[in-house]
Amino acid sequence: MSLIVQKFGGSSVSDAEGIKRVAKRVVDTQSAGNDVVVVVSAMGDSTDELLDLAGQITTGTHPREMDMLLSSGERISMALLAMAINELGASAQSFTGSQAGMITDAIHGRARIIDVSPHRIKTAIDKGDVAIVAGFQGMSRDSHDITTLGRGGSDTTAVALAAALNADVCEIYTDVDGVYTADPRVASSAQKIDKISSEEMLEMAASGAKILHLRCVEYARRFGVPLHVRSSFSQHEGTWVLPSPDDKIKIQEGEPLEQPIISGVAHDRSEAKLTVVGVPDIPGKAAEIFGIVAGANTNIDMIVQNVSTKGSGKTDISFTLPMVDGQAAMDVLNAAKATIGFDAIDYDEQIGKLSLIGAGMRSNPGVSARFFEALHLAGVNIDMISTSEIRISVVTSAALLDDAVRAVHAAFGLDGEAEATVYGGTGR
Amino acid sequence: MSLIVQKFGGSSVSDAEGIKRVAKRVVDTQSAGNDVVVVVSAMGDSTDELLDLAGQITTGTHPREMDMLLSSGERISMALLAMAINELGASAQSFTGSQAGMITDAIHGRARIIDVSPHRIKTAIDKGDVAIVAGFQGMSRDSHDITTLGRGGSDTTAVALAAALNADVCEIYTDVDGVYTADPRVASSAQKIDKISSEEMLEMAASGAKILHLRCVEYARRFGVPLHVRSSFSQHEGTWVLPSPDDKIKIQEGEPLEQPIISGVAHDRSEAKLTVVGVPDIPGKAAEIFGIVAGANTNIDMIVQNVSTKGSGKTDISFTLPMVDGQAAMDVLNAAKATIGFDAIDYDEQIGKLSLIGAGMRSNPGVSARFFEALHLAGVNIDMISTSEIRISVVTSAALLDDAVRAVHAAFGLDGEAEATVYGGTGR
Repeated sequence: MSLIVQKFGGSSVSDAEGIKRVAKRVVDTQSAGNDVVVVVSAMGDSTDELLDLAGQITTGTHPREMDMLLSSGERISMALLAMAINELGASAQSFTGSQAGMITDAIHGRARIIDVSPHRIKTAIDKGDVAIVAGFQGMSRDSHDITTLGRGGSDTTAVALAAALNADVCEIYTDVDGVYTADPRVASSAQKIDKISSEEMLEMAASGAKILHLRCVEYARRFGVPLHVRSSFSQHEGTWVLPSPDDKIKIQEGEPLEQPIISGVAHDRSEAKLTVVGVPDIPGKAAEIFGIVAGANTNIDMIVQNVSTKGSGKTDISFTLPMVDGQAAMDVLNAAKATIGFDAIDYDEQIGKLSLIGAGMRSNPGVSARFFEALHLAGVNIDMISTSEIRISVVTSAALLDDAVRAVHAAFGLDGEAEATVYGGTGR
Repeated sequence: MSLIVQKFGGSSVSDAEGIKRVAKRVVDTQSAGNDVVVVVSAMGDSTDELLDLAGQITTGTHPREMDMLLSSGERISMALLAMAINELGASAQSFTGSQAGMITDAIHGRARIIDVSPHRIKTAIDKGDVAIVAGFQGMSRDSHDITTLGRGGSDTTAVALAAALNADVCEIYTDVDGVYTADPRVASSAQKIDKISSEEMLEMAASGAKILHLRCVEYARRFGVPLHVRSSFSQHEGTWVLPSPDDKIKIQEGEPLEQPIISGVAHDRSEAKLTVVGVPDIPGKAAEIFGIVAGANTNIDMIVQNVSTKGSGKTDISFTLPMVDGQAAMDVLNAAKATIGFDAIDYDEQIGKLSLIGAGMRSNPGVSARFFEALHLAGVNIDMISTSEIRISVVTSAALLDDAVRAVHAAFGLDGEAEATVYGGTGR
């Protein structure tokens, strides 16, 4: 008997029919001899409706009350799902985040999980019930207030519960068949990946692949939780995301171990490039700039410091950051213009980031050569480059990003025969 | 400084405008130098919408999950109200039933409060916050499950909190100006009652006056909580419901103490009359019948046992009960027909109950004489009679009930000059 955690997003439970379909799948999984814990998001657009109501009342931020408000959404979907499962003759109980022992810090709207004590969930599954848990929410340890986990919250709830319960697998149900070698809406010949290591999935997620949130993959990797990303609309196997390098070697056992294994191509349009022009070329200036930007709570991604023009005593520092943080970063930098002593700020939102992810990349110089050759042949200019053990990323113009994705995808033999299937949007 | 508990029903918070209006009233109350605790129901029709969703999924009863589902409604209204209060520059925190320490038994859908431990509410008001509490819901003591209190639940939450916090008053906001001497939709000359004792209000509520739920009045009387029933659409004083007989004497100090004081006329169309015909006239048969009916969880109201016809050895037993319980009572009685040995059951839903409520009634024979004279003059036949220290009730035909109300109302000089104002329906 296995213990399976299944997570269903808002689009899977957007109406009564969807809830019944999910209930059927849960009951089938239990009937096949498994213990089942289900994590569910709020129904369809209900979160947007609550935000709209709040917008009619206030333009301010009220983080504690916003969490109280938004956490009502999962109560509705999980209670209805429990009824639908009971209706099929199985027995289900729903639990709020706090009842399920999801203990968080007190940062409303983007709380971090600090402990998971799923006693009630264990009791429920031990007596043969399906336990349904509200995704996205918890209770703060000190103040006992309701918190929400922010973006990717429900996936993270599922993985955290799977880790705490030592589940055999955490199934993430979504509206696509799994993780693809590239976004099928850009590269229609993209293929589903059957198995991928947590490390590579982490790089994919960090590089813009939206199917799994970075945070959920980080959690799964850290606690050794196997993920299975699959469609709630079909019975096909999806993509397994496996935490242990041993698993990775096992699944790829047909292949020579030292060969680079390319997992896929990810892209990201959500970043902007900010260049601080004419920075005095003296030690400590880069640290000063990044310290100031970090103070505005901004995540910097790629960084390039230009070689100083001889004799000028000045240099330019460029970095990428989420577009939504662009204005705040410019504001804090301009406020410190005199102290830092730079000349100007260049800001460009018309950029795209493309990343190639695969194991054994750094030790195979042939990979980067083929990568840059493919971009060159496609006429794509490269603005910035960054690499890790298992990733090469470049920044290019936004207009050429799709061409670049297709060119790299083809160059590494990732194109498949069949067109990929995409079903729709994703929930929280 | 006073501590005021204010309860707002679903019709007061049915949309953003309503929530803002309530917020304004709460802030005004606090600005006038009071500590304020607010109990709020779910927004307008939101409970019906949730029930409708559940109806699309199941025709069965799933009490634990239904409570989980319905309790989401107050989370939404209370979080939005907290935001609206914050927006006005005051500071508010919302609390679920379990956060507010509303501990109940485990009977889902109609849980009873067994303890109130409002530590967090006290802390919030001690630091100057408005505390907003979800009406209608609590947490079961043993299983720690979410429960709902059933009909009149939010009023009861408010009174229970007022009692536990030793509040100076519990204000029940509604869509009428207060409690009237009769239902103004029937007797347009009915007048608002300024002050009434808990005992009389209890009789009014039990006799069909719908403005306050019986349960809330019982709770207020038992714990000595003064209630103030008033309109959320105006600033007028409403009706004070005062627990202590001393208060009653005080407020009526202009009047001779031994004079009967008529509070009002209540009526009720929700009951039916059931007659068990041809019951063997031997000891224990009545107990047997009422034991069987009680087993079907039915509340019996008025009872009449006819005088046995000489020599027949048989008698008839009539009683009134809520119409909704009629079928169930007939079913259990018919199942026991052989054991009890009765001939037939007569069942009549075309009845109405009229009650006159007032202090000092029993010791003033003139009251009942005038009461029956008024009914006689109005051509109203009387079917059953029951009395208490402060109430006379009669059952009559449904068709004559309105005439009966107007006749009795006029006979006791309750008619006022002005027409009463009625605004609409009521929430839970």
